[in-house]
Amino acid sequence: MKLLEDRILKDGRVYPGNILKVDGFLNHQIDVGLMDQIGSAFYEAYKDCGITKILTIEASGIAIASSTARAFGVPLLFAKKSRSLNLGNDVYSATVTSFTYQKDYQVTISKRYLNENDRVVIVDDFLATGNAMIGLTELCKMAGATISGIGICIEKGFQEGGKELREMGYSVTSLAVIDSMTDDGKIVFRS
Amino acid sequence: MKLLEDRILKDGRVYPGNILKVDGFLNHQIDVGLMDQIGSAFYEAYKDCGITKILTIEASGIAIASSTARAFGVPLLFAKKSRSLNLGNDVYSATVTSFTYQKDYQVTISKRYLNENDRVVIVDDFLATGNAMIGLTELCKMAGATISGIGICIEKGFQEGGKELREMGYSVTSLAVIDSMTDDGKIVFRS
Repeated sequence: MKLLEDRILKDGRVYPGNILKVDGFLNHQIDVGLMDQIGSAFYEAYKDCGITKILTIEASGIAIASSTARAFGVPLLFAKKSRSLNLGNDVYSATVTSFTYQKDYQVTISKRYLNENDRVVIVDDFLATGNAMIGLTELCKMAGATISGIGICIEKGFQEGGKELREMGYSVTSLAVIDSMTDDGKIVFRS
Repeated sequence: MKLLEDRILKDGRVYPGNILKVDGFLNHQIDVGLMDQIGSAFYEAYKDCGITKILTIEASGIAIASSTARAFGVPLLFAKKSRSLNLGNDVYSATVTSFTYQKDYQVTISKRYLNENDRVVIVDDFLATGNAMIGLTELCKMAGATISGIGICIEKGFQEGGKELREMGYSVTSLAVIDSMTDDGKIVFRS
């Protein structure tokens, strides 16, 4: 998606350790017009799949999921992050290891809002190790829901998450795939 | 806002301790069409104020802020919650005491994205003690930004937050104000 790649080049900031900050338009301050373009792109990819729900994870995924859910005309559902194991019986829960923070957390959704009749697109801002996305696929499996696709804004193509999810058989639509970043700020997109 | 009150009566669930669960349409699973109606209501309230940014707090406020920002044609900015005090020099940070969890946390925003030229509407899903909202007003003060209004979906009118914010001089627009709830599920709205 050229619009997103151009915006990353214009407003993204690269820091040592393959860190890309896009907090001016994607995950802290948010350009809602860009989110709507992103939502439309995910709609184009999965519009014929009978989608009933857009699933994401708090917090950065919510604005993206909001625009995507609007494009599909379906509700969004965001998984909550918690370090507590005491979650009760009315939720599905999976453990995710955070690469950034080097610790485990739980992702949970209420059983009320996802079931075997649902056909889901999962969306998020970044895909790197893929751990959070794999956690969300596990929640869908517990609920018996069908995952029609995974929509990602920025995939770090030099990390294994995208490859792993595709090898698991999922359709992954990444709007910008970064093949390499250098500490002096050069970003190379996959063509 | 009759649409929101009706939805609360239809899909809200009351639990002992004045707990109102609206996770079927407002803050876990989210009805994006309803969010757009809410965003339009906040736009009507503050459309003549020269608003430059919609501010909220993760996670439940983000979908509401997304629809509100779309109505205004401005970016949204969401404050992050963190228990860390080690936040660096490039952020504004305030301490909030959580009534629900009985502990303190930090709310932070990057200095890059709020300044003295900004005119802000702050939005959130619930207003009860008002602690989170007061934290966000403190961030705006640090940045020198003007707060034109505070837009709330559901105000618990029997708690002090709304009264306190209005006494501080803020314009608070609450779309549904609950005057009382009983453990058997009866909800009385302020007329």
